[in-house]
Parts: sequence; structure tokens; C-alpha cells
Amino acid sequence: MRGAAKPYLPSTAVNTTLRLQELREQMLPLNISAYIIPGTDAHLSEYIAPRDARMGFMTGFTGSAGTAVVTQTKAALWTDSRYWVQAERQMDCNWELETDVSISSIAQWLISEVPEGGEIGFDPFLFSLQTQENYNINLESSNHSLKSIPVNLVDQVWKERPPIRPDGLTRLPDRVIRLFNLRGNDIPYNPFFYAYTMLTLDEIWLFVHTERVTEELKVYLNASCTKSLCVQLKSYDTVRDDLKKYVAQPGVKVWIGTEYTNYALYEIITPQDKLMTSSYSPVLTTKAVKDQTEQRILREAHVRDAVAVIQLLMWLEKTVPQGKETELTAAEYVNQCRSKQRDSRGPSFETISASGPNAALAHYSPTKETSRTLTVDEMYLVDSGGQYLDGTTDITRTVHWGTPTEMQKEAFTRVLMGNIEISRTIFPSGTRGVNMEMLGRRALWEVGLNYGHGTGHGVGNYFGVHEWPVGFQGNNIPFRSGMFTSIEPGYYKENDFGIRIEDVAVIVPVTTKYGHNYLTFDTVSLVPYDRKLIDISLLSTEQIQWLNKYYETIQKVVGPELDKQGLSEEKKWMLANTEPFMASGSSASICSSSLTLIALGIAFLHNII
Amino acid sequence: MRGAAKPYLPSTAVNTTLRLQELREQMLPLNISAYIIPGTDAHLSEYIAPRDARMGFMTGFTGSAGTAVVTQTKAALWTDSRYWVQAERQMDCNWELETDVSISSIAQWLISEVPEGGEIGFDPFLFSLQTQENYNINLESSNHSLKSIPVNLVDQVWKERPPIRPDGLTRLPDRVIRLFNLRGNDIPYNPFFYAYTMLTLDEIWLFVHTERVTEELKVYLNASCTKSLCVQLKSYDTVRDDLKKYVAQPGVKVWIGTEYTNYALYEIITPQDKLMTSSYSPVLTTKAVKDQTEQRILREAHVRDAVAVIQLLMWLEKTVPQGKETELTAAEYVNQCRSKQRDSRGPSFETISASGPNAALAHYSPTKETSRTLTVDEMYLVDSGGQYLDGTTDITRTVHWGTPTEMQKEAFTRVLMGNIEISRTIFPSGTRGVNMEMLGRRALWEVGLNYGHGTGHGVGNYFGVHEWPVGFQGNNIPFRSGMFTSIEPGYYKENDFGIRIEDVAVIVPVTTKYGHNYLTFDTVSLVPYDRKLIDISLLSTEQIQWLNKYYETIQKVVGPELDKQGLSEEKKWMLANTEPFMASGSSASICSSSLTLIALGIAFLHNII
Repeated sequence: MRGAAKPYLPSTAVNTTLRLQELREQMLPLNISAYIIPGTDAHLSEYIAPRDARMGFMTGFTGSAGTAVVTQTKAALWTDSRYWVQAERQMDCNWELETDVSISSIAQWLISEVPEGGEIGFDPFLFSLQTQENYNINLESSNHSLKSIPVNLVDQVWKERPPIRPDGLTRLPDRVIRLFNLRGNDIPYNPFFYAYTMLTLDEIWLFVHTERVTEELKVYLNASCTKSLCVQLKSYDTVRDDLKKYVAQPGVKVWIGTEYTNYALYEIITPQDKLMTSSYSPVLTTKAVKDQTEQRILREAHVRDAVAVIQLLMWLEKTVPQGKETELTAAEYVNQCRSKQRDSRGPSFETISASGPNAALAHYSPTKETSRTLTVDEMYLVDSGGQYLDGTTDITRTVHWGTPTEMQKEAFTRVLMGNIEISRTIFPSGTRGVNMEMLGRRALWEVGLNYGHGTGHGVGNYFGVHEWPVGFQGNNIPFRSGMFTSIEPGYYKENDFGIRIEDVAVIVPVTTKYGHNYLTFDTVSLVPYDRKLIDISLLSTEQIQWLNKYYETIQKVVGPELDKQGLSEEKKWMLANTEPFMASGSSASICSSSLTLIALGIAFLHNII
Repeated sequence: MRGAAKPYLPSTAVNTTLRLQELREQMLPLNISAYIIPGTDAHLSEYIAPRDARMGFMTGFTGSAGTAVVTQTKAALWTDSRYWVQAERQMDCNWELETDVSISSIAQWLISEVPEGGEIGFDPFLFSLQTQENYNINLESSNHSLKSIPVNLVDQVWKERPPIRPDGLTRLPDRVIRLFNLRGNDIPYNPFFYAYTMLTLDEIWLFVHTERVTEELKVYLNASCTKSLCVQLKSYDTVRDDLKKYVAQPGVKVWIGTEYTNYALYEIITPQDKLMTSSYSPVLTTKAVKDQTEQRILREAHVRDAVAVIQLLMWLEKTVPQGKETELTAAEYVNQCRSKQRDSRGPSFETISASGPNAALAHYSPTKETSRTLTVDEMYLVDSGGQYLDGTTDITRTVHWGTPTEMQKEAFTRVLMGNIEISRTIFPSGTRGVNMEMLGRRALWEVGLNYGHGTGHGVGNYFGVHEWPVGFQGNNIPFRSGMFTSIEPGYYKENDFGIRIEDVAVIVPVTTKYGHNYLTFDTVSLVPYDRKLIDISLLSTEQIQWLNKYYETIQKVVGPELDKQGLSEEKKWMLANTEPFMASGSSASICSSSLTLIALGIAFLHNII
């Protein structure tokens, strides 16, 4: 769909005429007919820093996903359905909105707009190898080619571009020992700092804005030597040149991941026999498996996080039925609760707090126009998470403070059944999430319901709340012991309500009767589900057993933390909400082995307190 | 592993010295340094006709899978572990055996044996586009290239090569109306005949050995005209030339599947913009969905096939405990039973009849050295199928005539649970089998058991017993209503026993409480499982309900057929073996929707009798 002609400039739109003119002047001497402006940064980040919001600067559109393309006469933005209304409001008449965000659709537009033989410029730091190849495949039968321009043209015309944040780097407590053990503050919600690393057989290179590295950190990093355990500091801006020099040496071979390494580094590794690729860098796949220390502290962070979420749920339960205006929104309240927990470092993403029909949009963020007062008549969904020095959390609960409909209860219960069926399943090490995620949908499918998003994603250790390449998608790596993933089935009824039940779980070994190398999930998010929404008669005996064991774990693990923090009312609330369910029937079924599993789950949890 | 030097020529080996010498003479004028001899035919068939057994002729090795390569000084065969012993026995000292059957391994060998710049010849009729590309990718960084030689060099030296079978083509009864409605007898177990077809917007071309088409068939095919419903007969041997001429016309574009179309046809479609590809030809994907008539008759064939399998199981149950030698083997007996059924056309593959440790080899075929007398002390697995004019069947049952161990019972029950869990699941149309097949493994995983083969494959209508691209593998197409697939989880304990429970099911629409376009499986194989091996206490209430409904269906559908055939003893045996199981517990669980489903399943089955 092309944008319709707009008769007036809405007051919310940014005037982009001048910046477009300046960008087009930059394009002329380079002989490019079009310039692609992706919405990502040089590290292919999901969340980006304000200084990397080049697409936003050029278009005026502030959504988190999109690609812009500029020619000498036209300018177009591609973004997905979540953002169509917002984009139409924020963009002026220089821009047209395109709604099919596939690269083939962008390429089709380029083929029709760029004259035959024309070159299409792009910043190789903002393309992964995969993205570059994808454009190439889509352009190859036409007479157009891509041109890599390693200096970003938007930056040349962006006078007010925010500088690197002056905040220095933070060193984590010594208990976590994984590579650099550093965090930064460059990207909202994500404790990242701009950096590249290159590991050779006997050297560690860290490309960073060296002025940010304090003397203390230099000592910590052993930065004054070049031996194998010394970190050699190099300038962030010379990574491409330094890599080029390294590659020029005889006999070297460089291993990179094609998914999260930018094309600017890939394209200089020539000839081809100096290059070795895999989808994901070995650093990413190594990081995906948390070691014992990381597992322990990530579990600890989830215990304190549970306290904050319990505080939120209890507060809402008390205040919403009164119908009075509160000083804080739910999102503000849970942030405040988290901020009081030890080692809190703010939210891990913008809280999704949505009631009634708003929750039917899986990733709703409140705006003035759409926000609703919480009432006992609507379901409420809250998806939030915290950053802590020892871990990152992400949890969704859906509640109802009045009388849910039968359909709401059934849908909620089936979403819960999906969460439990994944959580309790036993599988061989190396099974892929995509081949198990139907367990999250099966109880819904049974009555013709489903959900349109993925079933879970990896989670970092005081890192990104979405940490690839772990999860249940087709491009995720096989599950191994020590990985953390969210499990988050849902159900969304358009214009009516939305349900999601999300927990984070760690993958743990499990003893089976006959085999070795089997794994299961151990849920580390420890907050009860809304009892009012559970139709216990739908659950199987095994599901009820799992749920009761989970509640027992919450009591045993979160109970003492609530005591320690002197939160007696919250403790009472938690105990009332974790009372065991009575099975509505009984079946011998696969109990014996399930019990073995559950007992093991408890043993694991005991270790952490 | 390279073959070790062999000090003597085993008496079983074929002397290949002369034929190798003659082949090498053929290679010289073509300037090729190596020649690849695949084990398939021009239609990339799984089973091949004797006249296509070029790899077998050259090597002496008669196994069904492998690739041979010949250079001026060496000759090597690649085959998988099933065939290593057999290959070592059958091949003489001219040949070395290679055990890694990947194309990259063959390419590695070629790179080390062929001088730089050397060309490697292959018959493009015996390569799919995928195979050719795969060799290319593996050879591209070395200085070697593939050379397509459209005349087969083995055929030039194979003086006794079997001719096309003189049997003519058979026209199926009019009730099946899908394209040509013809079958042949060119390949053992498969009612195929050598042919290609090309469909244009207004023409139907059938490339066939025209001398095999009788006058009667010509009338049937409307072969004397060129209008849109007339079949134009062309010579099988000119398909490449005729396609070339067609492609040379302006404005034409040809759509082919890359998986099952040979490279000889692909390579002449130039320039590239005349070509359109998809993984599978639209003819294959259309054939995968059976129409109402095909569904009805395929079900009918399974009812008669059930009679034959019930006869076998009853006969074994009566004779094995007596310990006497029988005139017929089990495989011969079941073939005889099938041959007495209406429209029988022989077995659909070589029966797998294996007891004790032999069954632990998933695809055991009896040989003199390994065959065992059936006894009450061992488990027995029989995997067999029939061709009928109205359908193809494939069924596996595992039984024990004595006292199974607890472990055997548990493993059998968990395999059965896997079969049932897949069979009873409800899923949205378009779900991929690979994303559901873990349901076949889950009950086994729970106790640390698993199996090493796929979970099911498509089945033809009096066609191939393995009909791609339907099934549960990663490269199979999404499930749609009207597809037939086998469901066949198993468990194999090395040197001890093997279990497989295989049924064919049709994918049918199912009414759900809230949604549309949901599907489930309706099992069309109708033979009871060995009651002695079922530990009912492991099954969930829903699994017991499914099993009882399935048995009720067998009684209702196979019962009348047994009556009609006057098989009263078999009827009694069937009734005794399909008595309903009592649940060992009871649980409300997801019964209500399961009941809807099962009721529907019966309604479907009623239609066919």
C-alpha cells in the first residue's frame, strides 16, 4: 500500500524538507540513485541509542522498527502494522508509507524507482551479511547494484546528533567472570556499551571509546600488556582498519557470525579463504549457556523481582475496585517497587500495561489517546521486567478484579496449560525450541484458538531482555543445559481482551528412568497466576501437580525473601494465592516420572537460597 | 574410512575389471577425470527398475542406496551403515568403500583424486538441480568443475542392460479422475511407468515409450487431437529436445520443482528469466492432497488390507507357540493373504519381518545368515503393505506371544502413546509435521527413550508407498486436509528388540468450539495393537478414550468386511482384541472437545462403508 496523498501537514509531523535536501546533496557526488537507512545500529541491536536513530531523524517517525529509502525525488518508509497510524501522524508529505516490510518489497520499490544501471548506497555498518545478501538476491535479476559507503550520510547532515553518553563503563562484581565483565549505559533499558572484540589464539582486543576506560578499569583489564590474559584496548572507530591490517597478514583466518556481525567487517575479510562463517558468532553461542554462577545469580534476581511484581498485583487488587484515581500508573508503581530491590538498575524494557481491548494488541504501549482507567469489568495484562546487577527479568501476568466471562476463563486456562505443558516437558539435549513450541499452543488449538507471536526468547544476565539466539523460533539454536528462555503463550481477542502468561525458565538436566542427556525447564519467575481465571477442571492431573509444585516453590523461595524485607501483607497475599489446587479427578497416567522431575526441580531451587 | 586392502576376492564378489576398463575408455575422449554414478533414475526415484541399476552393475553392490565414482585409476562407492557389510562382500578389489555418504565427503574425495583443472562428468538425468548445486558448492573453492554429459556412459558398456519391461500401461477404473489415470509396472513394488508430462495453458504433453500405448488407451487419452483436453503423446527419449524447442519460443516461462526434476531438463531452460522454480513441482503438491474419491477408495483399500493383517496376526498367534516349522514365512503368508483381497496388486515394499534383536535394526530384511525362528520368547515386528487398484497401504505391528518384560511393555506403551498423541491432536491447517512430530516422542522422552528415524511419510493412491513431499520431516510441506501420512513412532533396543507402531491416517477437518480451519488425523489402518504389551495405567484418560473409539471403529468397519468374506474365526479374534479398555483413573481434563472430535471421526468413517 502506498501512502495516500495528504492534504495538510498534521501538527504532529516533523518537517523533513531541509534534511532531505541536504542528504540528497550528499548522495550526488557518490553517484548513487538511492540510499537505504535501516533502523538499527552497527551491532544490529534491537534497541538503539538516540544517536543511532538515523531513520527516526530523517523521517520524523519514532517507532522502533522500520527502514527508510531516499532517492533524488522520493522518500519512503517501510514499517509494520503496529506503527502505521503513528507513522502517518509523524511523517510529513515528503514521505510515503509502505506496509510490506520484507526486503523483497523494498527491492521491488528500488527496482521501479532507480534507473537501470543505477547504484543503491548503504552503510555497511548497519547491514548484517544476511541483510546484504537478501537485498542482492532480490536485485540480481534487475540491472541495479548495491554500493557500500562506509561513512554514514545521515550523520553528515545530522547537526544535533547526540554524542556518545558521557557515562563511563561499569565493572560488575567479581562473582561473574565471563570475558570483560563490563556494562555500559549507551542504550535505554540495555546495559550495553559500544564495543567490538576480537579474540585471537593469544590476544584479546577490545575496540571501545578508550576515553571512557578509567585508570581503575585499565588495571582490572590488564590493559598495559599484550600477553594472552591482557586486554588490548583499541579505538572503537578504527575497528575496520585494524581488522583489515590483521587480515592482510599471511596465514590468518577470521571466524564471524553472519547474523549479528555487520557487513563493514565482513566485506574487508578477503580473499574468501581467510573467512570462516557460522550463523552465530561462537561468542554468542557460548554466552547463551550460562555458567553455574550466572545461573545462581540470575535466579536470585528473579526472587527479588517476584517481590516487586507481587507488590504490584496486591496494590492493584486493593485499589482498582475502589475506582479512585491513583497517583502512580501501574507501570510507574512496578518500576518504583523494583527500584527498591537490591542491585536494581531500572526496567529492562518499557512496561506493557494494558486493559480490555488494549491488551489485544500484543505490544501495546499506553498513549494519551488510548489509555484506559483500570476497572473490575476488564481483564488486565502487565508485561514488565527489571535490570539488576545480577540478572535481567521479564514476566507477564494477566488478571481480572471482577467476574471474568466463561470464555475469558477458558482462554486463560488454556494459555496456562500451554505454559505448563512446555515447562514440564522432558526432551533430549539439543532439541530445537521450534519443534516443541506447539506444546504452548496445543490446548488452545483444541478449541480453535491460537496466538500470532513467538513462544519465547533468550534472556541475558544483566544484558538484553531479548538475548538471541536462544528461543522457540525457527532460527534459534538447539536447547542446552544452562540456557535461559522466556515461555510466553497468549491469546488475544480483537477489540475485547488479551492474555499472556510469561515466565523465564532455565534449562536443567533431569534424571530419567532409562536415558542420559535429557533436559527440562525450571521456572525461575516466581509469581502466582490469577486463581479467579483458572478453570481447574480443564487441567490434567499432571498439570495440576506441576502447578501445585510451582506454588510450593514460590512459598519456599519467595516467602523468606518477603519475610526478610518485612513485607508481611505481601506474604499473606502470596500464601493465599499459592494454595494448592485439588484435582477435579485423578488419573495414574505418567505420574511416577513426573514426580521424579518435580522433585529434582525443587532440589535445584534449594541450591539458590 | 577407506576400504582396507583385501587379500583375496570373496566368492560373493562380482568381477568388475572389464566393465571398469570399458567405462574408462568411454571417459577418455570426453576429457573427464572422474565420472559420478548415482544410484537413482531419471525421475529421482527411491526404488528403481533393474535397467536403472547402473551403480549396481558397475560395482557389484546391490544395496538400494549409494553413489559410485570412477577415475582412470580408482573406483569408490559411498553407502550408509546399513550396507557396509554387504558392500564389502559384494565388491571386488577394484573398489574402495567410503562410509560418509554426504556430498561434501564425495567432493572431498574428488578434490584429492582429480588433478587441478580436471573435469568431473555426470549424467544430468540422474542429478536433481539440488544435487548438482550441492556438488558445485562443495567444489567451488577448488579448481575443479562438473561436466554434464547427457548420454549415460555406463549404458554404453552395459551390454546386458535389461530392456524396458514389455508390459503395457494399465488404465485405472474411471472412478479415479486425476490427470492420466494410468499405472505401469516398471519398478518393483511401485506401479510407475517411465514418463514425463508437460502442461501448458492449453496443451497436455505426455512423454512415454509410445509403443506401449495401445489403441484403446489412445482413444481414452484423446491422443489424436491437440485441443486442451487431448493428451499429445511424445517420445520419452526426446523430452529434452522437445522441451528445448518449446523454451526457444518467445515469451514462454517454465515452472519446475527443484527437488524431483532432473538437471538435464533444468539446464536447457535458458535464459534464466524463462525459468520459474519451487522446491516441489505444483503437480507433486497438488497430488499430495487427495480428492474425495481418492480418499474414499484409499480408505476402502485399508479395510481389505486390515483383513489380511488380521489373518497374519491370528495365524502367527496360533502357530508360533506350537514351535513347529511352517510352510510359509510370515512375509509369504501376509503376501498370500493380501493377494486374495479384491484388486490386490502385490506388496507395496519388501516386508520387514523381524524378531528379537533383528527388529532393533529399523529396516531389517531377512537373510539366510540372520533369520530367526519365531518363538514365544521374543518380540516380533512386522512392517508390510499392499498395492491395490484403489490404494497403497503400509502398516507395522509389534507383538509378543509369550510374557513380555516390564521394560518391553513400558516401551511399547510409550510408543503407542506417541502414536495416539499425534493421531488425536488438533492443529491449524498449514501446520508443519516437523513442528508436531515431538508428540510421537514425548512419552518416550519422559523416561529417557527415543528413536532414530522419522515419524511418518506421505502415502500414494496405488502409487509409491513413500510419497513425498508429505510427512513429518523438515523438508515436508505443511499439512492440509486430504493428505495421507503414516504415523510411526518406534523404539529400538540394540541387540535385544525393536518396536514400531505404524498406521496411515488421513488429515481431516475438525469442528472446534471457537475456530475455523482446524484439522486432525483420522487413522485409516484398522488393526488392533497387541493388548498384552499395553500397560493401560500409563495412558491418560484421553488416550484411553481415543484407543477405545479406534477399536470401536475397527469393529464397525472391519467387522462387516470379515463377515462378507466369511472369516468368522478372524472376526472373533478381532472382537476379542478390540474390547474397550477400562480407564485406571478418570479425569475431566479436555474430554468435551475430544469427544466432539471423535464423534466427527466416526461420521467420516461411516461415509465409506
